[in-house]
Amino acid sequence: MYRAKVYVTYKDSILDPQAEAIKTALHQLEFPELTQLTCGKYFELELATTEAKAATTVEQMCQKLLANVNMESYRYEIVAAE
Amino acid sequence: MYRAKVYVTYKDSILDPQAEAIKTALHQLEFPELTQLTCGKYFELELATTEAKAATTVEQMCQKLLANVNMESYRYEIVAAE
Repeated sequence: MYRAKVYVTYKDSILDPQAEAIKTALHQLEFPELTQLTCGKYFELELATTEAKAATTVEQMCQKLLANVNMESYRYEIVAAE
Repeated sequence: MYRAKVYVTYKDSILDPQAEAIKTALHQLEFPELTQLTCGKYFELELATTEAKAATTVEQMCQKLLANVNMESYRYEIVAAE
């Protein structure tokens, strides 16, 4: 059993009004120390597979469904789990 | 300058139809090895503050805005950045 953590965020070239709104809200809540904020999606998957196959499986999942590869970039970590 | 990575996920007791839908979709895309999936939000923040203050600032941000503490749990990591 392997556990994958997948992080999907907008590419730098893509405008993200949601992140801008959150940043503005945090500034209004008296957090002036915030200089930059990006937001994205986070997935935690459990896979009943071998270590060798886990990475290719997660890669395919990201390409096909979890990320919109035109606008988003993704990265993932795979760790062994019981 | 410190960088904080914040992960916000639903508590285990909260039903998450979005995660169920993604899981079903991945099964239909021929990934039967997927046994469990949770999804959540991911924020990356840059803070112009001291190390001592960074953790309390991020904690307050989560409590006040980033997470809905009734339904969601959060965790964060803080690392030094240039």
